[in-house]
Amino acid sequence: MSSVRANVPNRTSSTALQWPIQTLSPCRGPVPFRSNTRLAHASAAPVTKDAPTAKQQKQKQVGGGGKAVEVAVTPRSEDFSKWYLDVVAKAELADYGPVRGTMVIRPYGYSIWETIQSYLDGRFKELGVQNAYFPQLIPYSFITKEAEHVEGFAPELALVTKGGGKDLDEPLVVRPTSETIINHMFAQWVQSYRDLPLLVNQWCNVHRWEMRTRPFVRTLEFLWQEGHTAHATAEEAEEEARRMIDVYTDFAVNVAGMPVVPGRKSRIESFAGANCTYTIEAMMGDRRALQAGTSHNLGTNFAKAFGTQYLDRESKRQYVHQTSWGVSTRIIGGIIMTHGDDKGLRLPPRLAPIQAVIIPIIKKEEDRVPVNEAAQRLADAAKAAGIRVKIDADERQTPGWKYNHWEMRGVPVRVEVGPKDLQSGTCVTARRDMPGKEGKQMGVPMEPAVFVAHVQGLLDEIQAGLMAQAAAFRDTNIVDVRTYDELKEAIAAGKWARGGWAASDEDEKRVKEETQATLRCFPFDQPEGPYTCLMTGKPASEVAIFAKSY
Amino acid sequence: MSSVRANVPNRTSSTALQWPIQTLSPCRGPVPFRSNTRLAHASAAPVTKDAPTAKQQKQKQVGGGGKAVEVAVTPRSEDFSKWYLDVVAKAELADYGPVRGTMVIRPYGYSIWETIQSYLDGRFKELGVQNAYFPQLIPYSFITKEAEHVEGFAPELALVTKGGGKDLDEPLVVRPTSETIINHMFAQWVQSYRDLPLLVNQWCNVHRWEMRTRPFVRTLEFLWQEGHTAHATAEEAEEEARRMIDVYTDFAVNVAGMPVVPGRKSRIESFAGANCTYTIEAMMGDRRALQAGTSHNLGTNFAKAFGTQYLDRESKRQYVHQTSWGVSTRIIGGIIMTHGDDKGLRLPPRLAPIQAVIIPIIKKEEDRVPVNEAAQRLADAAKAAGIRVKIDADERQTPGWKYNHWEMRGVPVRVEVGPKDLQSGTCVTARRDMPGKEGKQMGVPMEPAVFVAHVQGLLDEIQAGLMAQAAAFRDTNIVDVRTYDELKEAIAAGKWARGGWAASDEDEKRVKEETQATLRCFPFDQPEGPYTCLMTGKPASEVAIFAKSY
Repeated sequence: MSSVRANVPNRTSSTALQWPIQTLSPCRGPVPFRSNTRLAHASAAPVTKDAPTAKQQKQKQVGGGGKAVEVAVTPRSEDFSKWYLDVVAKAELADYGPVRGTMVIRPYGYSIWETIQSYLDGRFKELGVQNAYFPQLIPYSFITKEAEHVEGFAPELALVTKGGGKDLDEPLVVRPTSETIINHMFAQWVQSYRDLPLLVNQWCNVHRWEMRTRPFVRTLEFLWQEGHTAHATAEEAEEEARRMIDVYTDFAVNVAGMPVVPGRKSRIESFAGANCTYTIEAMMGDRRALQAGTSHNLGTNFAKAFGTQYLDRESKRQYVHQTSWGVSTRIIGGIIMTHGDDKGLRLPPRLAPIQAVIIPIIKKEEDRVPVNEAAQRLADAAKAAGIRVKIDADERQTPGWKYNHWEMRGVPVRVEVGPKDLQSGTCVTARRDMPGKEGKQMGVPMEPAVFVAHVQGLLDEIQAGLMAQAAAFRDTNIVDVRTYDELKEAIAAGKWARGGWAASDEDEKRVKEETQATLRCFPFDQPEGPYTCLMTGKPASEVAIFAKSY
Repeated sequence: MSSVRANVPNRTSSTALQWPIQTLSPCRGPVPFRSNTRLAHASAAPVTKDAPTAKQQKQKQVGGGGKAVEVAVTPRSEDFSKWYLDVVAKAELADYGPVRGTMVIRPYGYSIWETIQSYLDGRFKELGVQNAYFPQLIPYSFITKEAEHVEGFAPELALVTKGGGKDLDEPLVVRPTSETIINHMFAQWVQSYRDLPLLVNQWCNVHRWEMRTRPFVRTLEFLWQEGHTAHATAEEAEEEARRMIDVYTDFAVNVAGMPVVPGRKSRIESFAGANCTYTIEAMMGDRRALQAGTSHNLGTNFAKAFGTQYLDRESKRQYVHQTSWGVSTRIIGGIIMTHGDDKGLRLPPRLAPIQAVIIPIIKKEEDRVPVNEAAQRLADAAKAAGIRVKIDADERQTPGWKYNHWEMRGVPVRVEVGPKDLQSGTCVTARRDMPGKEGKQMGVPMEPAVFVAHVQGLLDEIQAGLMAQAAAFRDTNIVDVRTYDELKEAIAAGKWARGGWAASDEDEKRVKEETQATLRCFPFDQPEGPYTCLMTGKPASEVAIFAKSY
């Protein structure tokens, strides 16, 4: 490990990275009507006077069907775990599959995944990574070739033992990750240094036979992308592994509004078969940590197991140096648990499949045509400006029902248009992140350019606001500790503990046994030293973060 | 079947459907330098004087590696099957996986799939279909619920029998298609007529334990999209099934340049569990038929098996009427076998991941900077106009090597820029579909607007030209037959036989046994009647097409 560590200079995290998001350019020109409100900050139990009570919403049966029931979720402060499951169900993000631990990703949840895919895939391609697809069924013998890999994955494999009505000679592993089969192919494709670097990615499903499951966070099957690269030198592989964790950090911070802590995993917590694993660790609303993405420097471990070699410029055979890196549908769980509140989901605008929902308010028959036409004009203007907008013109539901419905689904901005608004040429906007009157803006001009600039401004503010709330929450819940007792105290209080660490693997295991907290990472962003090891009191070269995790 | 048939009016095929492709608008304004050549038409063995011979290309070892070998493919006329496998390998579209019958889709092949996905996914969304994801592992008992379905799929299932180190109580089926698990979920989601129609699609992998495999065309695992819809009435389901086969037809014709024959499958050839299957049948270069996409009217078969019911407006329980429809990576095999020639792949511009490749010709050191800069300017102009363009500036290979390399990969347009061209302010273009001097255009102005218009014009011509060639080939190889003897004669000559058909399932099976040809479809586009059944001599209400197939 020490040689790898030497290649990993500590430095400030890359949370300041920016990349262009066309649909969310800051609004330009004067927007004189914007209310001068400050951002509301997160509280553990943000139940507001405007939130419908469970009683108000309970069992609102609609029409002949038994389906259109809108019931409030369990309050987040009351039971975080139940709240999470309620949000997943009521926002129609996912449902349970028939096999224990499997999940159906419903259309609304899947559209969030598509937005994630779209951003990440674009970044990968900019970096020269090409998509490909490798078979899902892997000969069992492949898994056993890399000693640590088989140790890590064997307990959670699903095996195909029958095909076409016959018993197979060798069981086939249902892909838990693809390092082995990809090395089998790379060993054939890579001949010369001219073939390097080889940068591929695949979007696919993987299976891991987990015992304790939870939708998105841990399921028997999940969707992910797995990047796999091969390089001529150790330095290039290290650079690649770091580059990709930076891409993930950038995505988490600037798109998902998740103020993750990027860093290096301990040896114990690294990927089975890696020399070194980098991670982005996110703090959920219950202050547990979630590993939201990882990037591994695999060194030559798999190359040696599979004979993945190239001829260098001197025609000498060399092993390739490799990386792999992945983000999965688990991050959707992270987004829910970072931003959600008692009214349900809150989506950062850059991730939201629907950024603004327009609700026509129709009270009399003669309102219908002019109000719907006005809503359509607003939608057209927003769409033309690249805003993902939807009109909810379903007349079977009341406006109030729709407000709750779209709040549950986390749509950042709501626009209301009624007959009175038409007379004044204005509409009303409401912010999902700011409950009640504080987030409402009356008299927003319907003139397209002004309306669009106003909505874009709101989206920018909500994006920044959700990030700021989450960052403030994270920062108040990371405690600097100098001793093991202080660590235990912080963990017992539900917080993250950060302190110097230069102790043994055994000490790390002891922390886990005694506190249920694990070493989440050695953060890239290290505070001013010097540090002493919280466990041994000896000098330490870096601090580590410990926390309970998902 | 008769009731379903009654819902299927014969009509002309929808090959004339057009949909906008932004990057391929016809060139506007004068393009005075375009050569006045006519389209070259396909021949069975289009070996031209410009094609490098196998000897010229044989074993061109490059550098220290042993990989950069460019060997010509087996001529198509000599051995179509070997030619196909050569093209798949040498254009680096796919490779063999370690498990028999599995395939690795390599980056270049996968990028074709991404283009297909992008077009189809956009169409589905325009039609209100939402993507979702359902678990891959299906309880075995689900498959057995629909009688025809289990009969059709049981012989080719892969089964997971172990998970997490333990034998499972019930084997799990690795999804061969998802009607069963989707009905299990639909039965929970659908309550009222208000929940209908329910239109979902998923992009995923499926497994079918096939004995005889061939890359793309038939593999144990393949990628596809499977749409699944539920409707209140039989009429709506029928409309949906027809709508989707029209989408596929439109895609095949207008994007992939495949002049498919859309039509209805016979009862014997329909999907296991469907009332009626619609298909697009494509003629490959060896005149065998390839089923390139299907859409099924499932009636209430799965709804009854899974209890998928809704309350209608009178609060009565009714079964939903369903459809499913899919296109898979198989269609990539169809594209290769429709358009490929002795030099390798030929890609229709609308599908080509790279539409134009620019090759700088550098002979002296002083040429390098100005020639590469000129190439970059051309690429920038093309890219800005939405053309998918690549510069191949790799100086380790000769221009001639690159010409063969990109011809093998089917890139529609090649642009050459050398020092002489710079002096005249012009460049040279070459068409992949027109070998030799005929397809070459000297003196193409490098002025951006003129250059771009020229390339766009070539892309349009190539798109239309490949389609016209394939359509002419198809039309000369469909024979109208009046008797079974004439059918046998046509099939023996390798052609498709079209004739009146009103015979029994047993007669259809007899044709297959005696001629190896199957009833591909009753085409929507029916010739003028009346017809008599080629087998029985009795009046027939429609003609069918018989052919040998993949």
